[in-house]
Amino acid sequence: MKKGILKFDGGAAIVSAASVVGKYEHEGPLGDCFDLHDSTDKFGMNTWERAESEMQRLAFNTALAKASANERDVEVLFAGDLLNQCVSSSYGLLDFDIPYFGLYGACSTAAESIMLASAFVSAGYFSTAAAVTSSHFCSAERQYRTPLEYGAQRSPTAQWTVTGSGAFLIRREGRVRVTEAMPGIVVEKGINDASNMGAAMAPAVVSTVSRYFAESGRSPDEFDLIVTGDLGYEGGSILCELLVAEGLDIRSRYNDCGIMIYDRKTQDKHAGGSGCGCSAVVLASHLLPMIERGELRRILLIGTGAMMSPSSLQQGLAIPAVAHLVTICNEKYCF
Amino acid sequence: MKKGILKFDGGAAIVSAASVVGKYEHEGPLGDCFDLHDSTDKFGMNTWERAESEMQRLAFNTALAKASANERDVEVLFAGDLLNQCVSSSYGLLDFDIPYFGLYGACSTAAESIMLASAFVSAGYFSTAAAVTSSHFCSAERQYRTPLEYGAQRSPTAQWTVTGSGAFLIRREGRVRVTEAMPGIVVEKGINDASNMGAAMAPAVVSTVSRYFAESGRSPDEFDLIVTGDLGYEGGSILCELLVAEGLDIRSRYNDCGIMIYDRKTQDKHAGGSGCGCSAVVLASHLLPMIERGELRRILLIGTGAMMSPSSLQQGLAIPAVAHLVTICNEKYCF
Repeated sequence: MKKGILKFDGGAAIVSAASVVGKYEHEGPLGDCFDLHDSTDKFGMNTWERAESEMQRLAFNTALAKASANERDVEVLFAGDLLNQCVSSSYGLLDFDIPYFGLYGACSTAAESIMLASAFVSAGYFSTAAAVTSSHFCSAERQYRTPLEYGAQRSPTAQWTVTGSGAFLIRREGRVRVTEAMPGIVVEKGINDASNMGAAMAPAVVSTVSRYFAESGRSPDEFDLIVTGDLGYEGGSILCELLVAEGLDIRSRYNDCGIMIYDRKTQDKHAGGSGCGCSAVVLASHLLPMIERGELRRILLIGTGAMMSPSSLQQGLAIPAVAHLVTICNEKYCF
Repeated sequence: MKKGILKFDGGAAIVSAASVVGKYEHEGPLGDCFDLHDSTDKFGMNTWERAESEMQRLAFNTALAKASANERDVEVLFAGDLLNQCVSSSYGLLDFDIPYFGLYGACSTAAESIMLASAFVSAGYFSTAAAVTSSHFCSAERQYRTPLEYGAQRSPTAQWTVTGSGAFLIRREGRVRVTEAMPGIVVEKGINDASNMGAAMAPAVVSTVSRYFAESGRSPDEFDLIVTGDLGYEGGSILCELLVAEGLDIRSRYNDCGIMIYDRKTQDKHAGGSGCGCSAVVLASHLLPMIERGELRRILLIGTGAMMSPSSLQQGLAIPAVAHLVTICNEKYCF
């Protein structure tokens, strides 16, 4: 056993995935790939928080439908979101009579939940596990920064919280396999700007990615894509610079879910997308189908979370961050 | 595989546990059992939130010392707390260079973290895992109810958030074994009173406990103790009534960490203790040593969490709750 890298030798595969998004995500470059969208961002609800919960319910139900499964087939849920007390998840999945593990990893929660679900399935504890995460621009801005009604000007380094939810069903056998994972170490390098989370998260990615390549003995060339979710433009460029300084050049393989989800020219989203929903919906709608078709043979997904508390910032602390890595591949091209 | 019950056949044992508490916990009936305490509740820090983080750091360091281990021996941390963005854990454990899974299960997080750590160790992913949780009366009251300075009158059904942190080291072999676990289903039965969390949580315990006995085929008599953490006096009596109505009588074996931690006559703590730290410190300081000595042969610990969000309550929603069960036994008396 190598310290840090988890091997899913018993088998773990994403057999079904679904994505639900809001207006801007639907208007973006991946718009046609998402399963469901609501251009009001409200999903029929009277608060933003309930709208976010409703997205989780819809995403999970859609993932079930795509696998021709129902609620009784799923033995455990790993879920989380950005809201205090993770209420999008607890209320959104309340309808389902399924054991529930609540997680908090900020925007890294999609990768964290897929990692835990895969570990449990591979170890034989469960035959079908689900991972569900979400974020909503309006509920997140209100909680973390300023009420939308203020109309506060956004900083150029600010990321735009994605309105979206992704759900994944994981079983032992399937075409899209999760073969290994590496949980991240919490890193804090003095960044205390809530409008520059990319800078706070990039060092956590450096920690995980450099540990991964050192321990696995692999090189970036062995992956068709190394994708973070979600550093955005600012954090992504910091990451590549920091890694080059460490002698690791991933630039030819690198992309970021927060960069991919919006069009920089036509959608003014500053430093790109963020939020638990960002990497979840990009993975569910765009990356997994490419892996399934063999257009991507294997990828590294690194979920990145800035575990930012408005109270802690007011008390003068900097932002701790974490980056969780999972290796996902087409079954024909696994290591 | 029985749906819902996880069996740790590969082996999982709590090899070391530590507890750190505040003034009232130290003055309570278990006062002499705790490893460390600070009668100022501040642990040398200038905010309550940092004091809570410091308790986690101290608890984890003490658990390491008791096992004659150091940071490098621990391969993963499962941690969480009650604060928004789980900042007690992310800041409290930042000093340690160890991969980190952030959890949110409200007061059930101690049981959730022990369950996940045991599952990972038993499956062979890691040889040493740690579970760390905390709560602090002053940081929790401010966040969930009213600032302490208001001096608001407390309701008789209100529980008192325990100031405390518990840390557990888990390996495959040891005298105190975690043999099985059952993750809880989220339950919401219409309780929307933030001062009566016992009532909100009791139905979640009914769900988990009745599923456990139905699936395992065991009876309450096979356990020396069935302990919830933490329903308090109000929730505990509701639980016993609800279970009797379902034909399951656990009263002769039943106790609650929130009842055990304070003296009802001399310490005016209303409905008893609560908080992530409550079950963690009672387990670490009192129950595990009794199991180790064989005075308790086997127990069921049911961690109970009211995933209560002040925002959701203001928006008219009720409180969702979850109850995670773990079976802990002396190695001589395991099933």
